[in-house]
Amino acid sequence: MQVEPGKPFVVNLACTGIVPTKAMNPNIPVTHDEIIDDVGHCLELGVQMFHLHARDAQEYQTDDPEVYGRLIESIRALPGGKQAVLCVTTSGRLKHEFEFRSRVLELDGAMKPDMASLTLSSLNFAHSVSVNTPAVIRQLAEKMQQKQIKPEIEVFDLGMVNFLKVLQKETLVEGTVYVNILLGNMFSAQASLLELGCLMAALPDASMVSVAGLGKFQLQANMLGLMFADGVRTGLEDNLWLDGTRQTFASNVDLVKRVLRLADELERPLLNATDLRLSLGLSTADGQS
Amino acid sequence: MQVEPGKPFVVNLACTGIVPTKAMNPNIPVTHDEIIDDVGHCLELGVQMFHLHARDAQEYQTDDPEVYGRLIESIRALPGGKQAVLCVTTSGRLKHEFEFRSRVLELDGAMKPDMASLTLSSLNFAHSVSVNTPAVIRQLAEKMQQKQIKPEIEVFDLGMVNFLKVLQKETLVEGTVYVNILLGNMFSAQASLLELGCLMAALPDASMVSVAGLGKFQLQANMLGLMFADGVRTGLEDNLWLDGTRQTFASNVDLVKRVLRLADELERPLLNATDLRLSLGLSTADGQS
Repeated sequence: MQVEPGKPFVVNLACTGIVPTKAMNPNIPVTHDEIIDDVGHCLELGVQMFHLHARDAQEYQTDDPEVYGRLIESIRALPGGKQAVLCVTTSGRLKHEFEFRSRVLELDGAMKPDMASLTLSSLNFAHSVSVNTPAVIRQLAEKMQQKQIKPEIEVFDLGMVNFLKVLQKETLVEGTVYVNILLGNMFSAQASLLELGCLMAALPDASMVSVAGLGKFQLQANMLGLMFADGVRTGLEDNLWLDGTRQTFASNVDLVKRVLRLADELERPLLNATDLRLSLGLSTADGQS
Repeated sequence: MQVEPGKPFVVNLACTGIVPTKAMNPNIPVTHDEIIDDVGHCLELGVQMFHLHARDAQEYQTDDPEVYGRLIESIRALPGGKQAVLCVTTSGRLKHEFEFRSRVLELDGAMKPDMASLTLSSLNFAHSVSVNTPAVIRQLAEKMQQKQIKPEIEVFDLGMVNFLKVLQKETLVEGTVYVNILLGNMFSAQASLLELGCLMAALPDASMVSVAGLGKFQLQANMLGLMFADGVRTGLEDNLWLDGTRQTFASNVDLVKRVLRLADELERPLLNATDLRLSLGLSTADGQS
């Protein structure tokens, strides 16, 4: 994949995730107000896309749709929030069953997400298993299609690209595909040129590709995304540290600013949110789609 | 990886597996006698390595160590069976827990396997999930180390190669690594030059590499294994059909004979079983190791 010089790019902010806690990094936003605060600052910086995980009062991941709905409503009310692309998680890391993971897909009206994550196989993380059975992946894809919520495809390895193409043949995934390639998990593809190149070569043509790296691989992955793809996913969900020696806690704003400095060197401007929505086939605030 | 001309190669016969039934292919060996019969014929053809799954009276996969032990004893009594490398499954496809999967690792004496399969992450198959938690993989590797049973590493995708290197750093896997690369599962790496090349480039240097393909990909994968690797895994576990149009049921003997014809064209002879044992660091019948 060759990126034309000056091509506008996309930042997808994964601000919270499932695993990080305030004990691990005090900057991690977990409450409604903290998440809205981080999203607001990143909207000001030009971030167009947000990958949201909600937490309960004990900081645990929740699948309560009300919590997601309130986040979405509040982000829509922020300056720039109306056109931002808002993605919710359907992660299988804590609960494997469709009934829990799909609750957030029932949100409607002002609370409705634009997109929802869809992880395309089961996989191991360093200390856990994310179970995504073939049946549940298809159920989630079908529900998203019914609700006109676009899948935010998560690719950790070559096999997930293959199954993406299977879902396209089954017309469970249609149109331009938005893909986050996540590199550097202990049990997944690594942030090497060869592995990323191989993953990208396997992707369908009509893909919008974002590159993320876990932990210490985030910086390299984000740089590769800026050089060779349509954008990056960054944020505290994937990486808690600003520096390679793990002396300085990152914040979401720090991580976005670093991406923007690198993009500036590469002479790539931010895509505006309305153009992003048009590219992804999402409705726009003025009714275009 | 470049293979020198005339380099001897290895055939690993996966004769039974978990999924195939006699209803799917009448040639599938499921009883003790049927498995011994197929193994015997393939020993005569020069096959040096056997990947064994045992079944119960209802044709279901069993983890009963007695059934495996009797198979091993009977194979050892066959002509050529003493030096054959005998591998048993520890598959996580039906039972995920260490206690069931490790039963076969307790076999001793004449019933002891040389090797046992070790799948290096959780993964989806077309209709199921094989759950291999990080903890269970390490427990199995540790038990194999204690019992001096060599792991038969199963690699379905790039991430599994990465975790192999993690296990090597943790010294849970040592010495020459025997790796089956299995291509063509719906949720795993495919039988493409780029994907196999990327997998092989990521493998540790001291690897003995065998290439397998699922279903219709078996022929290509076996050919690639003969061209670029140390050998192939073939057999009815992976593929039920002899022809691409699925008109003719394969048998284990047919599939081995096809590999031998291709190897003959490529001028690669079979490695003898004693040399294979020496390469893998397994004890030999005359006490060498």
